[in-house]
Amino acid sequence: MSKTKAPDSSRRSERSRRAIYDAALALVGEAGYAKTTIEGIAARAGVGKQTIYRWWPSKAAVLLEAFLDLAERASEGESEIPDTGDLEADLKLVLRATVDELNSPAYDGPARALAAESVVNPELAAQFVEKLLEPQLQLYVRRLRAAQDTGGVRVGIELRTALELFTGPLTHRWLLRTLPLTHDYADAIVEYALYGLAPRS
Amino acid sequence: MSKTKAPDSSRRSERSRRAIYDAALALVGEAGYAKTTIEGIAARAGVGKQTIYRWWPSKAAVLLEAFLDLAERASEGESEIPDTGDLEADLKLVLRATVDELNSPAYDGPARALAAESVVNPELAAQFVEKLLEPQLQLYVRRLRAAQDTGGVRVGIELRTALELFTGPLTHRWLLRTLPLTHDYADAIVEYALYGLAPRS
Repeated sequence: MSKTKAPDSSRRSERSRRAIYDAALALVGEAGYAKTTIEGIAARAGVGKQTIYRWWPSKAAVLLEAFLDLAERASEGESEIPDTGDLEADLKLVLRATVDELNSPAYDGPARALAAESVVNPELAAQFVEKLLEPQLQLYVRRLRAAQDTGGVRVGIELRTALELFTGPLTHRWLLRTLPLTHDYADAIVEYALYGLAPRS
Repeated sequence: MSKTKAPDSSRRSERSRRAIYDAALALVGEAGYAKTTIEGIAARAGVGKQTIYRWWPSKAAVLLEAFLDLAERASEGESEIPDTGDLEADLKLVLRATVDELNSPAYDGPARALAAESVVNPELAAQFVEKLLEPQLQLYVRRLRAAQDTGGVRVGIELRTALELFTGPLTHRWLLRTLPLTHDYADAIVEYALYGLAPRS
């Protein structure tokens, strides 16, 4: 998750960076990916477009970094999934937080715009997966591996596949807009994925 | 799943209908939803645009019906999930077939275009869910209910939620382009969802 470095760390350039992130996310949420331009982001952020071109190579790069920043702020710097020793409780906490994030207007609009474009744009999707999505999914791998090491997840379960039992349903419901995303739903997904649908005898 | 009726059932109008479906799916796959027009579909299908306007109220209606037709042909008229009494085998069959469908170029392009638009267009999404997606998801509800009735699924499992353990991961992997969709992956998802990740003691 390398980040483009600002040429200096003064408060002024930090303010510009923040304004550019905010403008990029707001614009893409309102206008969609195709109609968002570097010029539009610059105008909304109140900076010259050369400022943006100096720091980022492309519209996709600005947007992905704005999202990375949004995700980091949402998690308040806490990047790992908590490990209290209770896998079910830890996963419910994370999936409920994900539900809240997906339901928040500040996230929903920009995230939908980026996801929609990734669905039909393999180049953007590759960057989106590499820089944003896969690092988040690896958090699940690490938490599930800790559980597997202590007997909470069966030996032999392939963890990179298994995590999709948690993230897949939420994404399905959110992107395809089938039914409401609620905490009860998040809890049920965690319980079903951990204990399965077939009876335990 | 009601279908707009052609004004007559002659072979000629059936040929036109087929040509319109094919043109609509091809165009949306190539140009995307926003750039697909009734005029473009008519020109490609070799029919007058009034023919399309007479049969369908909107571009969305033509496309959704073309997709319904595609799905019906893909399933060769077999709409229910098979019930051999072996839930795991039946679900693996269906998920492997879904993997094949998602990987087929004839389906991938148009389906991505429709899904991408639905992600950012709530009105289209509502029609997509009602006419196309939810009826397919209800097939899982019925198959899981039959299993629940005969002891293959735990009592108390809410089936409309549980089915997303199967459809969610495949959709996540397909739409977000994280990793390849394979038969082995489909099999693993079925096994994990049925038996859970936590050890059975």
